[in-house]
Amino acid sequence: MSAPLRVVSFGLGPIGLAAARLALQKTSIQLVGAIDIDPAKIGKDLGDLLELGRKTGVVVDGNAEAALKRLQPDVMLHCTSSFMPMVKDQLLLAAKCGVDVVSSTEELLVPEFQHAALAKELDAAAKAGGVSLLGTGVNPGYAMDFLAVVASAVTFDVTAVKCTRVVDAGTRRLPLQRKVGASLSKAEFDKQMATGKFGHIGMRESVALLARALDFKVDRIEQSVEPVIAAEDHKTPFLTVKEGQVAGIRNHGYGFVGKRQVMHLDLAMYVGAPDPRDEVVLESTPPIHLKFLGGIAGDQATAAILVNNLHGVVAAQPGLRTVLDVAPPRLCR
Amino acid sequence: MSAPLRVVSFGLGPIGLAAARLALQKTSIQLVGAIDIDPAKIGKDLGDLLELGRKTGVVVDGNAEAALKRLQPDVMLHCTSSFMPMVKDQLLLAAKCGVDVVSSTEELLVPEFQHAALAKELDAAAKAGGVSLLGTGVNPGYAMDFLAVVASAVTFDVTAVKCTRVVDAGTRRLPLQRKVGASLSKAEFDKQMATGKFGHIGMRESVALLARALDFKVDRIEQSVEPVIAAEDHKTPFLTVKEGQVAGIRNHGYGFVGKRQVMHLDLAMYVGAPDPRDEVVLESTPPIHLKFLGGIAGDQATAAILVNNLHGVVAAQPGLRTVLDVAPPRLCR
Repeated sequence: MSAPLRVVSFGLGPIGLAAARLALQKTSIQLVGAIDIDPAKIGKDLGDLLELGRKTGVVVDGNAEAALKRLQPDVMLHCTSSFMPMVKDQLLLAAKCGVDVVSSTEELLVPEFQHAALAKELDAAAKAGGVSLLGTGVNPGYAMDFLAVVASAVTFDVTAVKCTRVVDAGTRRLPLQRKVGASLSKAEFDKQMATGKFGHIGMRESVALLARALDFKVDRIEQSVEPVIAAEDHKTPFLTVKEGQVAGIRNHGYGFVGKRQVMHLDLAMYVGAPDPRDEVVLESTPPIHLKFLGGIAGDQATAAILVNNLHGVVAAQPGLRTVLDVAPPRLCR
Repeated sequence: MSAPLRVVSFGLGPIGLAAARLALQKTSIQLVGAIDIDPAKIGKDLGDLLELGRKTGVVVDGNAEAALKRLQPDVMLHCTSSFMPMVKDQLLLAAKCGVDVVSSTEELLVPEFQHAALAKELDAAAKAGGVSLLGTGVNPGYAMDFLAVVASAVTFDVTAVKCTRVVDAGTRRLPLQRKVGASLSKAEFDKQMATGKFGHIGMRESVALLARALDFKVDRIEQSVEPVIAAEDHKTPFLTVKEGQVAGIRNHGYGFVGKRQVMHLDLAMYVGAPDPRDEVVLESTPPIHLKFLGGIAGDQATAAILVNNLHGVVAAQPGLRTVLDVAPPRLCR
């Protein structure tokens, strides 16, 4: 067996912590460092932050550059922000320090889609540093895009794609319930949506990834977001959604070739959503209908896919990569 | 758009012909040559062999070396045999001529599993020639192995894998019905099975691929094959299976860690099989239950996945590769 990968966790929010917790359990991975800017976390042992009841010896560092230079890790588990401009300097630093990156940054799924110039800059820096940078996750990155890509492999052609994801937010962690607006009024929901940092991030990236992977010459990529209003009271372990309040979101993504809608991604994420599932239907030869019964559990699955990509990104060719370019993700032990 | 891939088809049996037919429809691929050893095919235009009603200008060559040297293709679509020793010289020739290969050879799925020395030789030759060699297909290569690998990406751990594939052979081409023994007597079936070239080839390779991908330390890989006896008459477009005759096969594959069965692959392929489907169930955190409703249509899907891997194998690093190493397969246009 080869030596464990030396990994640093950068970003210790809910997803970053879940990924770090998982990384600590892997024998093929050695978590050697953790970085966060939150003064309440700096200087603490990761074991305390994760309430493991033991010290890990990994103490949170507030200075990313110093930490990377001192630790010289193989790869970074990066969970700081959804938006490329926010993570630019962090990724350039990783490239400069020769550290590969698996990132949860949603906009990195198709980096050139919203940030073409920045994508070029990151790609050049990654190649100069001999590192590969990869953005992935469950949604975007897997459930509503990558699965449809992999399903397309057994077809002659694909004329249309429909992906459906239904998540009962009531079974998920509190931050997710908050993120979809559970228990807000309609007015509060609209106000939050206007910030652009609320609800599901990455729907248009999923459509863009599908368009690129399946070579649809799309003219327009659009999305709509609306609140789902509770028809009755729902109590979750964390909060109560009353009848008439927002239970969560419905987020549609569309890709058009001319006037023809060739891609439709339909995400329902609300407290009390019935029949949780992930489904991919391809209008194709032969036709494809793929279903994850019960759905893909978002929080655990997101931590998992980040950690499970660490070995793959280390093996990948240098540059700014996407899930279409690196080896298929799979469990690491 | 980049120039089309220049492809040569080597092997024009049912799968090779289906793949060649598909390749002819792709704009990102230019089929520039075809090779077969069958004197009845040599010298014929592929359009005639495929009954296209038109000439393609691609005439079947009986001399592989001469054809590859003359045509200098980018990549070979290789469908000649299930067994590595049978294809060894063909693959060495491709490596020598600098031609990448996508092969339907079932034993190439995990080349070192049954032929460790030959795998090393092929890997060295591929690297020397700067080419990548890949064995893939739907089964083995996708339905009962690769899908479970991709599903494992969203889990913390996997303790057991169950893959189920049910194919109604009555809806398939005649060669497939023959291959599973439809309309044979039990005695004829047993005689055929004893040849080792009958039924489904590659079950143990599927188990071995899963073991390698998910890092199960398997001690034993086993399989069982038995005929499914028709309980009533079944008429297909090609033949009739009478009550008491063989309708097809049931093929189980198993992987054991110590005495614990950690992998079970269950393939039922017979005329009249109810509820055709492909299913993957992972005992994992979180649990995974993935299903292709109606199943993955074997003949079309096999031709598709071979053609859809051509671009990926050209982009891959030189060497003897597996579906775990190359970029995820996806539709090409």
